[in-house]
Amino acid sequence: MSDYPKFVHISEEGPREGFQIEKGPIPTDEKIRLINSLSNTGLKHIQICSFVNPKRVPGMADAAAVADGIIVNPKIEYSALWFNERGLKQAMAFQHLSVDLKITLYASEHFLISNLNRDFKQHQEKTRELIKFCLEKNIPVTRAGINAAFGCNFEGDVSAENLVQAVDSTLSLAEEFELNIESFSLADSMAWATPLSIKRGVGAVKDKYPDMPIRLHLHNTRGMGIANAYAGLEMGVDRFDSSIAGLGGCPFAKHQGAAGNVSTEDLAFMCSEMGIETGLDLDALIRASNVATKVVGHDTPACVSKGGSLEAIRQRLDVTP
Amino acid sequence: MSDYPKFVHISEEGPREGFQIEKGPIPTDEKIRLINSLSNTGLKHIQICSFVNPKRVPGMADAAAVADGIIVNPKIEYSALWFNERGLKQAMAFQHLSVDLKITLYASEHFLISNLNRDFKQHQEKTRELIKFCLEKNIPVTRAGINAAFGCNFEGDVSAENLVQAVDSTLSLAEEFELNIESFSLADSMAWATPLSIKRGVGAVKDKYPDMPIRLHLHNTRGMGIANAYAGLEMGVDRFDSSIAGLGGCPFAKHQGAAGNVSTEDLAFMCSEMGIETGLDLDALIRASNVATKVVGHDTPACVSKGGSLEAIRQRLDVTP
Repeated sequence: MSDYPKFVHISEEGPREGFQIEKGPIPTDEKIRLINSLSNTGLKHIQICSFVNPKRVPGMADAAAVADGIIVNPKIEYSALWFNERGLKQAMAFQHLSVDLKITLYASEHFLISNLNRDFKQHQEKTRELIKFCLEKNIPVTRAGINAAFGCNFEGDVSAENLVQAVDSTLSLAEEFELNIESFSLADSMAWATPLSIKRGVGAVKDKYPDMPIRLHLHNTRGMGIANAYAGLEMGVDRFDSSIAGLGGCPFAKHQGAAGNVSTEDLAFMCSEMGIETGLDLDALIRASNVATKVVGHDTPACVSKGGSLEAIRQRLDVTP
Repeated sequence: MSDYPKFVHISEEGPREGFQIEKGPIPTDEKIRLINSLSNTGLKHIQICSFVNPKRVPGMADAAAVADGIIVNPKIEYSALWFNERGLKQAMAFQHLSVDLKITLYASEHFLISNLNRDFKQHQEKTRELIKFCLEKNIPVTRAGINAAFGCNFEGDVSAENLVQAVDSTLSLAEEFELNIESFSLADSMAWATPLSIKRGVGAVKDKYPDMPIRLHLHNTRGMGIANAYAGLEMGVDRFDSSIAGLGGCPFAKHQGAAGNVSTEDLAFMCSEMGIETGLDLDALIRASNVATKVVGHDTPACVSKGGSLEAIRQRLDVTP
């Protein structure tokens, strides 16, 4: 039990994950209201939008207006998602957006084709071009990751061996350019992971790259989100992406009406109750979650925001654990 | 990873947990429809109703009609919840209801008072009377358990030490009557548990009583249900209560609109994907979950029923893990 990390870094992706999949249209002001609310929770990193093709992701058509409209908390790193030079240039137009390149390969070629309309080889080539472009512009390239790291609706299961191969390819690409990769993200983009496959996959990657910090990006489509995060904690993983109120999902993953990403407040609650620091204010997260639920206009899957924190009960009872 | 049990026994409590808390009224026929659907899923034990005071639990006023109306699958043990001789006699009126006594003590006296209007001493005395009554009638007394085993909205946290004391008291009571207790249930009645407190609590009980099989009854009010079940599996727990579609909650626990019990289909999915047998048909559980959602007339919190099984995708893709 002593292997849990002492501090866990939680990066918020609710605005980006959520608004890309919501039917909408959601007014730009409402999106900004949620991001401003999230800026008062202790979060140090918030991904606020995607600069992508608005024909493919209509919910992100107002990305520039969202980026322009938020109240910037100087303690927070705000970022945007983008896949190509055009998107990168749009993000760079905003001084308050942190811009760096994450080298992202895919464990599933079919998902890559569905998501970005490229095969493995084309994607590697595009990624090389992007790395070159970023290095020329002095844009940091210090992160890397694998999408569909544990399984894929278009290809099936991803074994730990295949996952390690995908990590190898990604790090080889980084080596070509003599890049120093500071953390490596494993994304369960289509919710195939279980605690067991998290342990196997993370374990296999850590066996080969013991000094590489691993980040987990987890979806809750099949209810495994928090259990998978817990399995990650047991493997010493100390950084997670999550989504306020459990907003999100993947627009190309062919789910219908399913739960979204692992929820920020449930993850923060678990950490806090287990004595792991996150720097987050759970009450403020619950308030932001309530804002999120109002903004999207329907019930959201996160639980602590409805069930209430235990700290609130302890305070009322005047007891400490 | 080899400590997981090979087979996990899942007992269904959705009809009882769900209908006791739903605002209703839900027609008796609809309750029966759900139970009949559950009877075709491979479940071996279904708790179908409570024989309790209908003034306190109006959703159980038709318990006898429900018990009378179901199509009995002879492979299934059907049971009912009851707290006193009157309830027991009502249950005994149905030949197809399995009747035994579970000795249940409480880790929290305040919860006991709220739930049954008795203090510790009065409850022990009532339990003694009930044990005597059952033994006279040749009713088996082979199970025991603790409610509010990990924490309580009326008292706060329950430490592993206090949990073990409650287990001690329960087993002393069993010893008074020379009873052979075959399994011991720990109920997280108000969703205070985290994977860490599950490991600590179950670990402490197992340290003192290494040969006693432990059952976990988990609620998902704060989103920890499946993660707590996973922590239980890691501790070798091989029997769980759960609730189809995640129906349920506790009518006296002072939650509002929160998620209910850990869901049967999500738990069965996790076990199956981790190579643990349950004897359950996940597709049939998803069908029963859809029935449950229709019967209660609102969205239910379970995930796999909305996200879909992975086996269905593997079959479509014609791949095996």
